[in-house]
Amino acid sequence: MIHSHAIVDQVDAIGRETNVWAFAHVMAGARVGDYCNIGDHAFIESGAVIGNNVTLKNHVLVWEGITIEDDVFVGPGVVFSNDRFPRSPRMPSAKRRYRTKANWLESTRVGRGCSIGAASTICPGVELGDYSMVAAGSVVTKDVRPHSLVMGSPARHVCDICTCGQRLSGSYLESDCLECGEKAAARWDARKGKPVEVRMYGARLLFD
Amino acid sequence: MIHSHAIVDQVDAIGRETNVWAFAHVMAGARVGDYCNIGDHAFIESGAVIGNNVTLKNHVLVWEGITIEDDVFVGPGVVFSNDRFPRSPRMPSAKRRYRTKANWLESTRVGRGCSIGAASTICPGVELGDYSMVAAGSVVTKDVRPHSLVMGSPARHVCDICTCGQRLSGSYLESDCLECGEKAAARWDARKGKPVEVRMYGARLLFD
Amino acid sequence: MIHSHAIVDQVDAIGRETNVWAFAHVMAGARVGDYCNIGDHAFIESGAVIGNNVTLKNHVLVWEGITIEDDVFVGPGVVFSNDRFPRSPRMPSAKRRYRTKANWLESTRVGRGCSIGAASTICPGVELGDYSMVAAGSVVTKDVRPHSLVMGSPARHVCDICTCGQRLSGSYLESDCLECGEKAAARWDARKGKPVEVRMYGARLLFD
Repeated sequence: MIHSHAIVDQVDAIGRETNVWAFAHVMAGARVGDYCNIGDHAFIESGAVIGNNVTLKNHVLVWEGITIEDDVFVGPGVVFSNDRFPRSPRMPSAKRRYRTKANWLESTRVGRGCSIGAASTICPGVELGDYSMVAAGSVVTKDVRPHSLVMGSPARHVCDICTCGQRLSGSYLESDCLECGEKAAARWDARKGKPVEVRMYGARLLFD
Repeated sequence: MIHSHAIVDQVDAIGRETNVWAFAHVMAGARVGDYCNIGDHAFIESGAVIGNNVTLKNHVLVWEGITIEDDVFVGPGVVFSNDRFPRSPRMPSAKRRYRTKANWLESTRVGRGCSIGAASTICPGVELGDYSMVAAGSVVTKDVRPHSLVMGSPARHVCDICTCGQRLSGSYLESDCLECGEKAAARWDARKGKPVEVRMYGARLLFD
Repeated sequence: MIHSHAIVDQVDAIGRETNVWAFAHVMAGARVGDYCNIGDHAFIESGAVIGNNVTLKNHVLVWEGITIEDDVFVGPGVVFSNDRFPRSPRMPSAKRRYRTKANWLESTRVGRGCSIGAASTICPGVELGDYSMVAAGSVVTKDVRPHSLVMGSPARHVCDICTCGQRLSGSYLESDCLECGEKAAARWDARKGKPVEVRMYGARLLFD
């Protein structure tokens, strides 16, 4: 469903069952997956990549260099960025810098199932780990661990959160979620030669 | 007045003498009172309630669960929110959470005459007291007392302010406003069994 | 180039080779110079003044009282403001305040070559010095020196930066830029009776 007041420059870049709402603009060369929701006044630039089941609330701005994986929630008014030391590309002394993207373009990965609270700012070149959560109004200046809740300006770790979004009393790998029953654990993976996370309980509850 | 480039899904939900400017979108099921001003690119979701004489500057985002009382000023780029632990409702493991609004929807009240400065973020479930003021760029994470000026991320009390918007040297109940002459006082209300605020002076100046 | 979905109320107020993108709105009485780029959903109010070679990224909000000089970069979602103690002008007790602009309107100057990072908030009445830089997500509450990088809420000085946008190890007047080779120095100006800044090196690199 594409609202009659939205602009989608290249309709075949939008996945199945994805909605694009009023006054949103998806540029040609952006890719948006299936079952997504793109809110009013959102903007997705050429080169941005968005997975499946993603919710982009109203006024979200996504640029080239930003990759948003499946199942992500991006709250209203969230702004991404991709240039750490911007100058106006039209300023004569900055033209050299903007001749090639390698000079300035930094990429950002938003991991699977991550949530970004309303009106947060994501600085260039950071990585938001899977199922991490950014509290509303935060300014994220560095990488966020998976399952970490971060808050503030600059955003700092507060506690771990469950896949379902609830706060945990301890670290994700050592806590049961009182809300959904999920319990994760580290299992030794012989092939990788390191421990990997496994969800031990809760799958039935979560993925019904 | 509804601008030719605005979208008002249900015109009879908009009060008399209310303006809706370009690229704004008021969904069906939202209620907007009389003599309001809804700026460009603002968005008002179904279920939001807005009183009379309210100014919503450009790009303000108002959701279901948000109630804005009479005489409120909401500055440009202010973002409300209504879900404390959001996940993408399209993520399979979050579908249960989003089956019913009781699981996630938190409500916010913006009291009469309150002002919210530019680009502030209002976290879910807070109450902004009557005639309180939020400084530009703040992140409001908890309730704000009436006539309190709050500032910062997270927003903290700085001083009291008058109904007219000026800073007071002491508490609202004990200070004369040098700007408008208003003086409030607590009077014992026998019916309520507690003190209530009364504006003792300044009414002539303020309400001429 | 004015996008078919943009609104420019007064086309002759827009300079040569300036682009205005989709869903942007430039009101009558605003002035925009040559070779500018006005992003999607930006809003420029009557009375705002914008120079040449300016980049306004998406969703930028510029009001009366704001002057943006040549070569400035304003990042996505940046919000300016011009009223330090706002109340809803429609609230009966605030009508007196809004009878004349002298009561409330404060002006802001954004100096030549300045950069304002994504989603920053600029409080009323501040001055951003030439070639200064505001980090993403900052709240600027007071003046910023030329060539200063400020960051945070409230924004504070971090270090000096070069005209080209790179961080310097010391003050602008005493540092060589490792990136572009620019070196500034103070020279005594007999006519002004004070030292003035001169760029001693790097001009060839910068202004080729």
